[in-house]
Amino acid sequence: MNRNSHFKRWQAADLWNEAILMGNGYQGAAIYGHTAKERIQLNDDALWSGNHSLNRINPLAREHLAEIQALILKRQFTQAENLMFKFMFPSPGSMRSYSPLGELDLALNQNNPFTMGWICESQGSEYESDLNLREGILNIRHRQNEVCYQRETFISYPDRVMCISLRSDQPAAINLDMKLNRCPLPQGRVPDDRRPGHFLSAGPWEATRCDSCHTTEDHELLLSGKENGTPFVVGIKVETDGVLEDCYGSLTAHQASQVVIFLSSQAGGAGEPDDETVLQRLRQAARQGYEQVKETHITDFSRLMDRCGLSVPGDPQASLAFQFNRYLLVSASRPGSAAMNLQGIWNSDFNPFFDSKYTININIQMQYWATETCNLAELHQPLFDLLEKMREPGQQVAREMYGCRGMMCHHNTDYFGDCAPQDLYPAACFWPTGGAWLGIHLWEHYRFTQDQAFLARYYPLMNQLALFFVDFLILDPEGYLVTCPSVSPENRYLLEDGSDTPICAGPTLDNQIIRQLLKACLAAASILKLDNPQADAYRRILAKLRPDQIDSQGRLMEWAHEEREYTPDMVHTSHLYGVFPGDEINWKTAPALFQAAQKSLEARLQAGADLTGWPAAWHLALNARFKNRALVGQEIAFMLQRGFTKGLLNQGPIFQIDGNLGLLAGMAECLLQSHQGLDFLPALPPQWPDGQVWGLRARGDITVSLIWARGKLTEAILQSGESDYTNLVVQDMPVISCDQQLLSQEQLHLSRTESGYSIYLAAGLSYHLYFSPGNLNINDDTHSSL
Amino acid sequence: MNRNSHFKRWQAADLWNEAILMGNGYQGAAIYGHTAKERIQLNDDALWSGNHSLNRINPLAREHLAEIQALILKRQFTQAENLMFKFMFPSPGSMRSYSPLGELDLALNQNNPFTMGWICESQGSEYESDLNLREGILNIRHRQNEVCYQRETFISYPDRVMCISLRSDQPAAINLDMKLNRCPLPQGRVPDDRRPGHFLSAGPWEATRCDSCHTTEDHELLLSGKENGTPFVVGIKVETDGVLEDCYGSLTAHQASQVVIFLSSQAGGAGEPDDETVLQRLRQAARQGYEQVKETHITDFSRLMDRCGLSVPGDPQASLAFQFNRYLLVSASRPGSAAMNLQGIWNSDFNPFFDSKYTININIQMQYWATETCNLAELHQPLFDLLEKMREPGQQVAREMYGCRGMMCHHNTDYFGDCAPQDLYPAACFWPTGGAWLGIHLWEHYRFTQDQAFLARYYPLMNQLALFFVDFLILDPEGYLVTCPSVSPENRYLLEDGSDTPICAGPTLDNQIIRQLLKACLAAASILKLDNPQADAYRRILAKLRPDQIDSQGRLMEWAHEEREYTPDMVHTSHLYGVFPGDEINWKTAPALFQAAQKSLEARLQAGADLTGWPAAWHLALNARFKNRALVGQEIAFMLQRGFTKGLLNQGPIFQIDGNLGLLAGMAECLLQSHQGLDFLPALPPQWPDGQVWGLRARGDITVSLIWARGKLTEAILQSGESDYTNLVVQDMPVISCDQQLLSQEQLHLSRTESGYSIYLAAGLSYHLYFSPGNLNINDDTHSSL
Repeated sequence: MNRNSHFKRWQAADLWNEAILMGNGYQGAAIYGHTAKERIQLNDDALWSGNHSLNRINPLAREHLAEIQALILKRQFTQAENLMFKFMFPSPGSMRSYSPLGELDLALNQNNPFTMGWICESQGSEYESDLNLREGILNIRHRQNEVCYQRETFISYPDRVMCISLRSDQPAAINLDMKLNRCPLPQGRVPDDRRPGHFLSAGPWEATRCDSCHTTEDHELLLSGKENGTPFVVGIKVETDGVLEDCYGSLTAHQASQVVIFLSSQAGGAGEPDDETVLQRLRQAARQGYEQVKETHITDFSRLMDRCGLSVPGDPQASLAFQFNRYLLVSASRPGSAAMNLQGIWNSDFNPFFDSKYTININIQMQYWATETCNLAELHQPLFDLLEKMREPGQQVAREMYGCRGMMCHHNTDYFGDCAPQDLYPAACFWPTGGAWLGIHLWEHYRFTQDQAFLARYYPLMNQLALFFVDFLILDPEGYLVTCPSVSPENRYLLEDGSDTPICAGPTLDNQIIRQLLKACLAAASILKLDNPQADAYRRILAKLRPDQIDSQGRLMEWAHEEREYTPDMVHTSHLYGVFPGDEINWKTAPALFQAAQKSLEARLQAGADLTGWPAAWHLALNARFKNRALVGQEIAFMLQRGFTKGLLNQGPIFQIDGNLGLLAGMAECLLQSHQGLDFLPALPPQWPDGQVWGLRARGDITVSLIWARGKLTEAILQSGESDYTNLVVQDMPVISCDQQLLSQEQLHLSRTESGYSIYLAAGLSYHLYFSPGNLNINDDTHSSL
Repeated sequence: MNRNSHFKRWQAADLWNEAILMGNGYQGAAIYGHTAKERIQLNDDALWSGNHSLNRINPLAREHLAEIQALILKRQFTQAENLMFKFMFPSPGSMRSYSPLGELDLALNQNNPFTMGWICESQGSEYESDLNLREGILNIRHRQNEVCYQRETFISYPDRVMCISLRSDQPAAINLDMKLNRCPLPQGRVPDDRRPGHFLSAGPWEATRCDSCHTTEDHELLLSGKENGTPFVVGIKVETDGVLEDCYGSLTAHQASQVVIFLSSQAGGAGEPDDETVLQRLRQAARQGYEQVKETHITDFSRLMDRCGLSVPGDPQASLAFQFNRYLLVSASRPGSAAMNLQGIWNSDFNPFFDSKYTININIQMQYWATETCNLAELHQPLFDLLEKMREPGQQVAREMYGCRGMMCHHNTDYFGDCAPQDLYPAACFWPTGGAWLGIHLWEHYRFTQDQAFLARYYPLMNQLALFFVDFLILDPEGYLVTCPSVSPENRYLLEDGSDTPICAGPTLDNQIIRQLLKACLAAASILKLDNPQADAYRRILAKLRPDQIDSQGRLMEWAHEEREYTPDMVHTSHLYGVFPGDEINWKTAPALFQAAQKSLEARLQAGADLTGWPAAWHLALNARFKNRALVGQEIAFMLQRGFTKGLLNQGPIFQIDGNLGLLAGMAECLLQSHQGLDFLPALPPQWPDGQVWGLRARGDITVSLIWARGKLTEAILQSGESDYTNLVVQDMPVISCDQQLLSQEQLHLSRTESGYSIYLAAGLSYHLYFSPGNLNINDDTHSSL
């Protein structure tokens, strides 16, 4: 099987959101792909405006909390909101924002290319842009004046360096101008009234946002400055077989047949820009040479990419999207890098939408779902690092706003782990359960990896998040423990007097998250054989949380009481958390709620909920859990056709990576589920009658590959990291082989379960399960490449 | 005569550029004028992004200079440009930019007004906005629920505080929420898809750009932070007869019939935000009380406004514009404040067009023209302070780029006096004469004020600017000394091969400026009775500068040789500098050149040059010098009708104050000229048949008031600060009285001149000149108010 996937194009990008995104977790680049005048927009994951966290907590919140809670429980929302707006709104209103690093500008065989207002431009013919997703290498080829040019680009994680190699097939055919800059990205073009027939980028022009930009004695070019106190530096080092001319503010290679550019950056910290670190990386890469750095990069990148893949010959767009979105994940989140923000690491705007930070009432969680199922579990780590950063700010907010122990976060955080409310947006910002949701990612990571050392390391953090609710929850008039104040994220309901409010106590989502977190803490204590001092408190809470409820229309209730939705097409499906990404509402243990949840989603979709972006991705994962083949098929097709730019990027008002990575997670959920045993092809989209997927991951440290034909599973290959029993959700028992030997029921410790069979998998062995015995050929090696 | 001018409106502003601008030189505010939810956008003149100057000089320029010069003189422009782009372009490409301070948000009787994406809103009836231009006080009145509300706003220069007083005519009718914020200004509105029927401002939302915002122990509200290292703080202190509630991030006054808000700010410096200075100003203002601060403000403001005015009953829009533009000048530039930038002090954009800084190839000069003619000479001082700041950077650039003594500046500077090239815009940035043009403002200030102490103080600076040219000028093949490289600002010409270039040697503008500057230095030395060590060098240069030339079409030549213009509609009329603001080409001493210059301008206008903004204002002043009554009439009418927003602001792609203040200067130039004797009503617009103007200033420290009827001057009143002879440009000798006594020819030391008469004015006396003896009534006191 050919695991190489390529994303090919025959023209360069006009817009930023059509550019090819590349990255190594730390460094990001958006490559337009122009041949004559090229702009490569750059990011550094640590370049956030403002070099420290803000204290935005309103200290008056705590003294008004009891009154606010009492008003909410009495449904006196106007008065409650008055107090909340005054005393719970943060000040300043928002957190820190993510900033662009700058741009590398290249001009091939151009005369004085970089004047004010210059715009990207391509020349020549036979243009081809080929992004090798397996290797993380972009090749752009074109022909001009009988010369073939090839530009190869990759961003190495092992060497923390971006490498660009431009080659011509004839000697001395390259004159390349190279320049670094940092200014607002030009958008659009306007006629140049001083040069009729020419165009300029729309202004403002050349508003340089750096403190210096010039060459070193060794002819490296460094651009550095501070972004509201955050130091940054980006540099390039150039190697060429031609002549390298140092023009102080730029470099030009003349008469070359190859030019190699190494680019690296460093940002963050409180001091001056760290030129030395960048120069060391550049020089080390140059010493190794381009080919060596490339080889190391390919080994590193393909190791991650090769682990998992999808091949559905009838729907090549889906196969490409699956691999491209894994490619984005590998490019955006690496151990040691910052957690992916709302745009991964790619942002060109000095004043980005939503500050290009972390919205944790669905978005960032969605971005990390696929790390586990799509076999990139170590890329989940930056999210856990972020949670670690949130510990102290989260404890401060718990203590100062709510008088509670433990840690908490509202619906956003930033690079510095700010946990205070965000946005002066009541429908979102008064939600106290964002931290807890992130905490469940720790538990899920353990469920997939079975890594007890990891669990032991993060167990205290899980308990910090749980402890907050021990102190925070209050009894409502019906005797349930509720979060108060809270919201069901971003949704509002109508009150008797015709007004509407988002404010509530104990929304379904909160109950589901808290239940899952507390149960996880108790389970973890048991796995780690630790006494949890809060165990009794957790159990008391679990007994007093309001259970999931069904309303008079047969739908799952979003709030504690049956309310009239203000926007029936609301895209957040917060109360369906229990179906996905949670699992307390499932086909097996809660069929009635499961059906009600399905009805809730149907109602939302019928009311016209958005079918692109992260909401569509969430709906897809939910419908995969509902095993609705027709709907997941439609949703995948719609997203692929409508949801993405020419750069395969999910685009609403802005590019958000959640839509890309949510689609990936949703696709995986269609193919394999493991929350109630191993469930193969639970919601195979009808447009994928034949296909195979390899390297999916299931809870219990199991790697799963599947082959199917004409809509039916033919073979599954399981490999477990742990010797343990696992449940198969199957109608009929497959034939199972290991090491090309058929296994007996005794060898498998086979037993029947309510929904299938339990078998024992020995660690490290490959088990082949054949579901179409007619085709059985256990000596057939054609699948061994899986 | 009623000197009170009012700018009245009956609705609030929708857009920023329609807002009412107020200021005291240091603080600026753009007031939309909404009654229910109001946003007052704030500026501080010292808040520039980045707290120090950049070094952007390309040090390789100097070693390539001789080669570049040789290529230009050989007209090998392609090669010259190659070298210039590589070695003369600055890096980073641009200077520092001016940043907004933030906003004060007010909500009157609103429920939880300031949620994410809120938009300005008015309620009630009988809305009236009344800006008293004489007092610098804005009154906004409206009625709601049977209550009349009045909001009075001014910004005091003596107390450096903005004051807002909101009053109701009934007790306890005010509930006012007050909040400070600093985030990108919302532009436009979008439907709120989470609240059908509601609107939000278009995002991004609430991207707070400050480090803290909260109340003090004394319930002042302070917002502070750093803008790329530049500390800033803005604060308010509130006094009310109601109850003031401290909500930490905001303040609310309840049950009030009056609320007074004092607002002040401080920015700049290298340390932390200067809370104490702001608090002291606020507390001192509060101690004095609103009425006292207001009285001091009115005294200060009206003292400047009363000095000069225009009344043309047939064209009230013109009278208003004249006073409004003087009002803008008084609001934007005060001794001690920063020089007015391209937008005065008003900018709402974190990334402003042209960095909202100083473009010195016409714009900033134009903004200061009217300070002298319109009797606000001390407001010219901030420009001289800026020139002082430019001394060291200008010396560094002269030395490092050009190997020259003295100081120089290219076509832009910033708050820190950066003198390196700006913009990577060859048609503008390679111009070496910007500093010299500013230097002539020193000399012009002396010519108007006759202030020898001033001249003595700035004489060394003038010579620094002149000294640069002693070293910089080179001989061209024809034996003339030329600036090289240079440009005629922003204009290009066609070469033989069909290409075009802006690069040249010795453009007409440069020769004119250098001539004027060197002559001024020589004249100043003589006035100050100083030996100028460069006197011989200056005289040698004066002898070898190319004189103004007339081309084959009879037009004044823009370049050293007759070139084909690339854009015949070019709005810069650089070569007409010698007509205005210079005066070497005038009706009296250079009639042939004067006629050729007039032909040049006509050609530009016929080719379609823009008729709004600063180009139109320059054309107006030129046509005033050409004494073309019909054209100045058309130009004034066109600008008033098309060139200004509902806020009376000159608007191109953005608001630039040059159009406002250039119009003012142009109007003054129509009414009085003094470069060749006192010339009364030299270009009276036909739409002003009757009118009067008082308090105009003429060179020689003379204040002039004029009355005219049916297009004919009837009376002029002259008052001189110096006892000296002055030339009158008149056909017939008027009857002259002083102290209600007719003066004899002997008393006047009267003599005939080529173009009129010379008379002697004794310092401090008022001379009344009557041009229609039939109406003579020297005992008539009706003009004494002039």
